[in-house]
Amino acid sequence: MCGIVGYIGSKEAQGILLEGLSKLEYRGYDSAGLAVYNGETIGVNKSKGRLADLEAKLSTRSLPGNLGIGHTRWATHGKPSDENAHPHTDEHGMFAIVHNGIIENYIELKEELIAKGHRFTSETDTEVVAKLLADLWDGDLVSTVRKVVARLHGAYALGIISEYEPDKLVAVRLASPLVVGLGKGENFIASDIPAILKHTREVYILEDGEMAVLTADRVQLMRVDGTPVEREVMQVQWDMETAEKGGYDHFMLKEIYEQPKAIRDTLASRLKDGLVDLSKEISLTKEEIQRIERIHFVACGTAYHAGLVGKYVVEKLTRIPVEVDVASEYRYREPIINDRTLFIAVSQSGETADTLAALKEAKKQGAKVLAITNVVGSSVAREADDVIITWAGPEIAVASTKAYTSQLIAIYLFGIYLAQVLGTKEEAELKELVEHLLELPEKTEELLQPEKVKVVEQFARDIAKHQNLFFIGRGLDYAVALEGSLKLKEISYIHSEAYAAGELKHGTLALIEENIPVIAIATQKALYEKTVSNIQEVKARGAHLLGVTVEEDTELKKSVDEVIRIPATMDLLAPVLTVVPLQLFAYYACVERGYDVDKPRNLAKSVTVE
Amino acid sequence: MCGIVGYIGSKEAQGILLEGLSKLEYRGYDSAGLAVYNGETIGVNKSKGRLADLEAKLSTRSLPGNLGIGHTRWATHGKPSDENAHPHTDEHGMFAIVHNGIIENYIELKEELIAKGHRFTSETDTEVVAKLLADLWDGDLVSTVRKVVARLHGAYALGIISEYEPDKLVAVRLASPLVVGLGKGENFIASDIPAILKHTREVYILEDGEMAVLTADRVQLMRVDGTPVEREVMQVQWDMETAEKGGYDHFMLKEIYEQPKAIRDTLASRLKDGLVDLSKEISLTKEEIQRIERIHFVACGTAYHAGLVGKYVVEKLTRIPVEVDVASEYRYREPIINDRTLFIAVSQSGETADTLAALKEAKKQGAKVLAITNVVGSSVAREADDVIITWAGPEIAVASTKAYTSQLIAIYLFGIYLAQVLGTKEEAELKELVEHLLELPEKTEELLQPEKVKVVEQFARDIAKHQNLFFIGRGLDYAVALEGSLKLKEISYIHSEAYAAGELKHGTLALIEENIPVIAIATQKALYEKTVSNIQEVKARGAHLLGVTVEEDTELKKSVDEVIRIPATMDLLAPVLTVVPLQLFAYYACVERGYDVDKPRNLAKSVTVE
Repeated sequence: MCGIVGYIGSKEAQGILLEGLSKLEYRGYDSAGLAVYNGETIGVNKSKGRLADLEAKLSTRSLPGNLGIGHTRWATHGKPSDENAHPHTDEHGMFAIVHNGIIENYIELKEELIAKGHRFTSETDTEVVAKLLADLWDGDLVSTVRKVVARLHGAYALGIISEYEPDKLVAVRLASPLVVGLGKGENFIASDIPAILKHTREVYILEDGEMAVLTADRVQLMRVDGTPVEREVMQVQWDMETAEKGGYDHFMLKEIYEQPKAIRDTLASRLKDGLVDLSKEISLTKEEIQRIERIHFVACGTAYHAGLVGKYVVEKLTRIPVEVDVASEYRYREPIINDRTLFIAVSQSGETADTLAALKEAKKQGAKVLAITNVVGSSVAREADDVIITWAGPEIAVASTKAYTSQLIAIYLFGIYLAQVLGTKEEAELKELVEHLLELPEKTEELLQPEKVKVVEQFARDIAKHQNLFFIGRGLDYAVALEGSLKLKEISYIHSEAYAAGELKHGTLALIEENIPVIAIATQKALYEKTVSNIQEVKARGAHLLGVTVEEDTELKKSVDEVIRIPATMDLLAPVLTVVPLQLFAYYACVERGYDVDKPRNLAKSVTVE
Repeated sequence: MCGIVGYIGSKEAQGILLEGLSKLEYRGYDSAGLAVYNGETIGVNKSKGRLADLEAKLSTRSLPGNLGIGHTRWATHGKPSDENAHPHTDEHGMFAIVHNGIIENYIELKEELIAKGHRFTSETDTEVVAKLLADLWDGDLVSTVRKVVARLHGAYALGIISEYEPDKLVAVRLASPLVVGLGKGENFIASDIPAILKHTREVYILEDGEMAVLTADRVQLMRVDGTPVEREVMQVQWDMETAEKGGYDHFMLKEIYEQPKAIRDTLASRLKDGLVDLSKEISLTKEEIQRIERIHFVACGTAYHAGLVGKYVVEKLTRIPVEVDVASEYRYREPIINDRTLFIAVSQSGETADTLAALKEAKKQGAKVLAITNVVGSSVAREADDVIITWAGPEIAVASTKAYTSQLIAIYLFGIYLAQVLGTKEEAELKELVEHLLELPEKTEELLQPEKVKVVEQFARDIAKHQNLFFIGRGLDYAVALEGSLKLKEISYIHSEAYAAGELKHGTLALIEENIPVIAIATQKALYEKTVSNIQEVKARGAHLLGVTVEEDTELKKSVDEVIRIPATMDLLAPVLTVVPLQLFAYYACVERGYDVDKPRNLAKSVTVE
């Protein structure tokens, strides 16, 4: 995944491109580069590292001109290096391109081009596009781009400029996001709206298989086969201010503290008479809901962990069998899908390529599709039949926190709604759940009180020197353990792993040695005794234990070194609370180790390649 | 989990008990102990560590006498230590007991007994049983034992002796295995038959809720409520010789090399006219099979990984939806079970407590039950409606190898059989699968040729110093990656983790740094390109890569440091071959690190506690 920007107009392109890239760093930040046409030739400057490294280079060799493209990279093929950074050019520097996505058939194309005498300077898949442009050049830029695109398999958003036709900026999209911004005497392209929001609020969102030809005064949209496309201009309503840090050291910490609000907002206007009302977002009729034979939650990373909770919740409330799949696996295992399948995609950004691809496959096979996403108008939202928006607001930190808890809330709401429609649970029981849901914002706030946070912080700082760590729990506690472990991995680079507590003895217990930190979760009443037995197993081998349990429990502290208590709630709802100390734990472990909380190495905020 | 033995007769008990325990060390080996009645009092000698440590202690202070009990421990409550080792006694040494299992309500009992003035010397759950015997003593041993048992929740096999009635040895079983051996003028108890096989081939297998009262000349069986029990004597047919190392350095290596035979034996006599014939083992009628609406594979550890392959195989061949669950999680998530559910338990030993408990629950709710197990007459086999035995022969090494590949074969056979009965696949396609199945023993042998083994051994020795490692793959390759990772964890104590290759970028990629070893599996044709993209992602971050691919592949070697090729087969069958180099990899990594291959720390061969 990468971010791309492009400018054509009468201003200096360099500053506009750099500023745009700074808003796209969440998409990747291991190298960056610009290409600008100076009236005679295309100048390129690129650098391994953060955007700041590129800016340093540009300060000694700037790129003047009014037409340019820029790129911030997240490596897929080839290490982060100056050579592998974009833009890439053909051998004579007549074409420069930036690319977000993966060219799957690049090895074959590269071999073919090498045979024809082209020389490659990078290890990227992208460079074949630049060389192909030169190879297939027919005297017309748009026509040549179309010929090139016909040769590519994979996913791409491309920005292309050429010395042959320096009054044009060409963009193409297949399965990687791309927007066109409309200015006065100037136009823009970008992977995402924030990159151009300073200059315009009028955008086109390109669809798969479309291209845009920009001049300073005009934007033409067409399909890659040349068919013209008509599109309404979209007006962007929101602004970037909500995405500021607001006094916190890091976005992640700010977002953890925003969870009470995110939960409250996600619940708001979806409750009526003590029950759930999703009639505005769910178009499925009662008959259609009754026909549902199975439900598939499909997602990646943190959203997948929300799906795991979803399985418990929906099966318990409705007795409809639920499967949960990692999106990158789903499509290829030939899942059993028909018109009685409800497919639920969970994605914070709504642009997760794996999830989107799985969604399209399920839809093709006749499934109804529900999206749970944080971004209105995102690709996942647009492809779905119905959408439940999680009102968590923009999430900037790569490690997701408030999006996860909001996804859980959306799942509870949907589960209760299904149970209401199907009559699978007594109304009184559902009303009790709703009452407890309404108390979650306040209970989340309790967990964010300084005295609770301090215990977690201290434990995190104590174990931060360790390279390995385990989370254990049973049932819903296991689902949350997986999420806690992922958080820790993502930002602290500690190799942590979550285990179903009862499964540990079937192999992984071999790794438990003196002083290894273990976070043991025991919030589920029905599983409490069994979980404590498993905690004893690791304690007997010398583990250093942090226990997470419920307010009323007084037993667990006898078996662990430190204990965190979450406010009392119904077992089914505990994950929303349990995850909070785990998020804080990951945060403080990262801070203690001195890593970049909001921008962990190798990762990007939303993963728009498969 | 633990192993217990007991002897009553006219010979010296000590030697018989020690020899019995040596056959039970596979059940745990962190401490051991004996209690022997010398004609006046009960002497106890116990020691932390292996059985050899206890023998050293006994050489300076032996325990004469003709009535005794012995124990080899696998810690659940309390660390391995002299104090926590069994046997445990009451304060006045009138009762001595050995226990295999967990007393779940021990904290409550302990507090009650402490309040009454009993003093505890260990951290174990077991000690409450000894104290309770003294507390509830009513002048009659059998009656007192029954009163004690009525107070216990949990799982236990108990061996009990008392100075009050030194002509008796009492044994009780609930949910932990226990056999009684019948001699001439002497009788035995043990957790498993090998412990007494030197002395007798006539045994009773106790059932749940039963107790046995042994004197030198007589054995009485009864329910714990006192009802007498009639049981036929079982004659043991097999012997221990097959379980010898046969020239290999370790049982694990021997068992890896026994795989071609194990596969051949598991296939044998189940094929007819080029198709599968399971009519001898599967009692389900065509109508019953047609009624199956869903299938649940439930298992632990390695057998769970076989279940994951089972999901692919059975769904692909029959289009019946399959779920796979870790047994310790299954029971507590309220799975959706009815009389149209087929429950498949997979367990090498057939004694895995978690699997057995899940099986009983599914049966209670009306599911049909199929067992895939390596042990005829095991608890799982006895509880199931139908059984497919994996003819792998005794597996001694804690890390399972030939049992896994044999489980896969059993699953293929069953999947094909279902497809035959249901007509969900063309006969020609199924015959092709069977043909390829028949070639697997020979292809497995190819993988065990010295030149192939050497590549794996070298890579394993090269990376053995690392503390962290990842396995990646997609689809069936991911299922095998999980098993490869578990093997490595179990014996080498390297913290390895398997990831669905496409999911890595959603978080765990943060852990991939310069030189970290990654084993990448790419044997599945349909997933090959996508997997190679993911391999490029980790390579770009500096990973040191071993690739596992198919014979005809010439591409992968460009992206990895070393490559292992498995003989060509159908994608669906590849796991049987793919796992072999991964088993060897774990083996040689362990050897290089100098650990005990066959008896890894903290683990036991079959886990008979939950």
